Amino acid sequence: MLDRLRELIGADNVLTGANMDSYARDWSGAPQGTPLAVARPGSTAEVSAVVKLANETRTPLVPISGNTGLTGATAADGALLVSLGRMARIREIRPSSRLAIVEAGAVLASIHDAVAEHGLIFPLFFGARGSAMIGGALSTNAGGSNVLRYGNTRDLCLGIEAVLPTGEVIDLMRQLHKDNSGYDLRHLLIGAEGTLGIITAAVIKLFPRPLANVTAMVAVPRVGDALTLLNRLQQETGSAVQAFEYMPRAYIETHLKLVSGARPPFDERYDVNIMVEVGTTAPRDALPGPDGQTPIAAHLEAVLGTMFEEGAILDAVVAQNEAQRLEMWARREAAARVMTCQTPHVDRDIAVPVDRMQEFLDKVACIIRDLDPGAQDVSVAHLGDGNLHLGVFPTHDDEELCQRIGDTAEDAAVSMGGSFSAEHGIGLRKRAAMARHKNPAAMDAMRRIKMALDPNGIMNPGKVLPDV
Amino acid sequence: MLDRLRELIGADNVLTGANMDSYARDWSGAPQGTPLAVARPGSTAEVSAVVKLANETRTPLVPISGNTGLTGATAADGALLVSLGRMARIREIRPSSRLAIVEAGAVLASIHDAVAEHGLIFPLFFGARGSAMIGGALSTNAGGSNVLRYGNTRDLCLGIEAVLPTGEVIDLMRQLHKDNSGYDLRHLLIGAEGTLGIITAAVIKLFPRPLANVTAMVAVPRVGDALTLLNRLQQETGSAVQAFEYMPRAYIETHLKLVSGARPPFDERYDVNIMVEVGTTAPRDALPGPDGQTPIAAHLEAVLGTMFEEGAILDAVVAQNEAQRLEMWARREAAARVMTCQTPHVDRDIAVPVDRMQEFLDKVACIIRDLDPGAQDVSVAHLGDGNLHLGVFPTHDDEELCQRIGDTAEDAAVSMGGSFSAEHGIGLRKRAAMARHKNPAAMDAMRRIKMALDPNGIMNPGKVLPDV
Repeated sequence: MLDRLRELIGADNVLTGANMDSYARDWSGAPQGTPLAVARPGSTAEVSAVVKLANETRTPLVPISGNTGLTGATAADGALLVSLGRMARIREIRPSSRLAIVEAGAVLASIHDAVAEHGLIFPLFFGARGSAMIGGALSTNAGGSNVLRYGNTRDLCLGIEAVLPTGEVIDLMRQLHKDNSGYDLRHLLIGAEGTLGIITAAVIKLFPRPLANVTAMVAVPRVGDALTLLNRLQQETGSAVQAFEYMPRAYIETHLKLVSGARPPFDERYDVNIMVEVGTTAPRDALPGPDGQTPIAAHLEAVLGTMFEEGAILDAVVAQNEAQRLEMWARREAAARVMTCQTPHVDRDIAVPVDRMQEFLDKVACIIRDLDPGAQDVSVAHLGDGNLHLGVFPTHDDEELCQRIGDTAEDAAVSMGGSFSAEHGIGLRKRAAMARHKNPAAMDAMRRIKMALDPNGIMNPGKVLPDV
Repeated sequence: MLDRLRELIGADNVLTGANMDSYARDWSGAPQGTPLAVARPGSTAEVSAVVKLANETRTPLVPISGNTGLTGATAADGALLVSLGRMARIREIRPSSRLAIVEAGAVLASIHDAVAEHGLIFPLFFGARGSAMIGGALSTNAGGSNVLRYGNTRDLCLGIEAVLPTGEVIDLMRQLHKDNSGYDLRHLLIGAEGTLGIITAAVIKLFPRPLANVTAMVAVPRVGDALTLLNRLQQETGSAVQAFEYMPRAYIETHLKLVSGARPPFDERYDVNIMVEVGTTAPRDALPGPDGQTPIAAHLEAVLGTMFEEGAILDAVVAQNEAQRLEMWARREAAARVMTCQTPHVDRDIAVPVDRMQEFLDKVACIIRDLDPGAQDVSVAHLGDGNLHLGVFPTHDDEELCQRIGDTAEDAAVSMGGSFSAEHGIGLRKRAAMARHKNPAAMDAMRRIKMALDPNGIMNPGKVLPDV
């Protein structure tokens, strides 16, 4: 089988033994098992040939791009890893249509850089953007900090090309905003974590780059009050809020201790700290006046001033320059470091309806009180999306306790109509949660679809669905 | 079978014979065949019971809501029509979360009215909104005039509930903006035209109602120049363009002849007439100044003035009051009447990449020159979406000629990466086009999915897929 593989894509592109080392661990350093081999096809035709061979020989396949997903979706013990890393071209940028055509292995940061030359953005931003590739972002329907304004990865994609588990190439590379011609296979493959096929290329949407961003830290009495703030700012800015991030007091304090040179967001300490950012593409809002302030910044300050007088917010600081803005972002983007600075810890990716976040956090407080009264809640949230990265530091080293806190909180979220997997996907690590929480009829439909499209079960087997 | 049906949902809710007359024709008056009976279930549980009975007895089922789709998707000769009309409740409106929970039979206009009380909109607007129901809009992924700003119906939906072909109820009624927990069955059922299940309820997104709308008619030299206009206006308004509609000279002239009291948009006649509308939710843009003009209107006038001086546009008229605005909309919304005022006529629902519309219209001009040099092109377009409703009046009564013009134009669109079905779906009438144009691997995948979810082939059989 490996000999045939070498014939198909060239011996240099089939890695075995120690050459596979860089694929043996995920981004966090966790071991991923030992693959049979790593195939590095250089074109869609080569991916198709590899998949056909695997299907014929019943060899399990695991697609991999940037490997930053952290759910074990790329674990490939005994399977053939198919790396999309060589297919990294940005084939075309069409500025007037606001789209780009990219291969699956294109790194997000390289897409960001390429489109910036045209005054455009591809608004998929998250911490791992320097190594995450668009194929993986599509396969997991990645989220990030700008979902509030621009949507999840699936919302940023007009078309895809993919290789199905039979090796057939499915060409859905449409540059269209309307196309109602049969079932939406694009949305089916996006977020399927490589279990229904390998995405090889995509047509992605671009947007005008904001000419001015206004970033502020705002303190409100309770998380429930933040929704009022968000809706008011959306109304006042014509829905130009692009980030709305929550950090609790314990997060702020842990960050201060952990990061040398870090400063607190306010002179006083508050329980509920919100980082909000508004962006505008309109020159008339973005041109600084005689006082050096842009109209959008002046307006945001005025609105926050009014809300302060009304008692709707407790405090607010608007970044006065890029350095202050970056300091605000750095505090929020330190989350991966802050939330893992203690071991063990609880780390869950939860969503609840946006108007029930306060209720959920109250439940988490009860759970902590019941199970480990001294534990610290350092959860941060993409609050505008109702997406909480639940982080809890227990008082003592107890993995089982962490598991119980996490599971109980997950159950609480699901009982409120929430999700146990907001933006990272299922992979291997959340299959038990999937079995526990997902609607049985939905699970059954997924199994049927999986078996219909991948009758030999070769494509990323054992991921997403607990029992296929 | 009918007796058992009467037991399940009550004899009053099973219509036969002449009582079915109102279901025997579609919105345009075209006959739809004679159903076996019409079932009118009153709850999701009743829909489930009806589907289980049909699955057991191998009775073909056709779901129907407002019946305004015009593709024959609800034709039900010999099949059991399942009307969602009794399930019309708006179960809940949650203003602060900007969402509503509605049953499939809720008429769009009733949703619009109900959410208006909260200062919100559900931005799915098209001519048939007074009878179209949300279940049908979701099943066909309906488009309309505001897709440019708010997306297609699928983009306006957070969650659905549906009855699968086996009768199982699938509960995906999530109020979440992020939920990566397995395959996206919501997007699979949306746009499937009732062939994979019956959508019974949905969670839909709401948006702040614009406080001021500015509507203008703009003439540009060629359709290709309109994209420059669109991108400029998006940039200047922070992407607040909510409609960008194209009408050619022949459309304007036909409209003038057809509609008494109609007036031309400009003193002169132009080839390329664009109706553009910008909306703002921000009070500071919407509050009239001392001259009675809103800042957003003043800004739009200034931008259009600059573009006129630059020679980028030929003419522009901004509506000065609501009556003038409604006159502009009435001209555009007369399209269904204008484009069908002559029989026979060509009527195709086409999409092309937004930057290739000029090229496509040039091809249509060539096709007309080849096939019927005197024919008139009265096509209108949701130009911002690249969606053209191709309308051609031949010089003489010749159905076959119309077919040839339409097919040739469709082929041209597809060869440019376009679609033969932009917003109306496939139904019965576009199955041949589906067979001719759709990617074979995609067709095969759709067939497998259909057979996996509907093994007995009872759910809207013969629709969408040509040969299942």
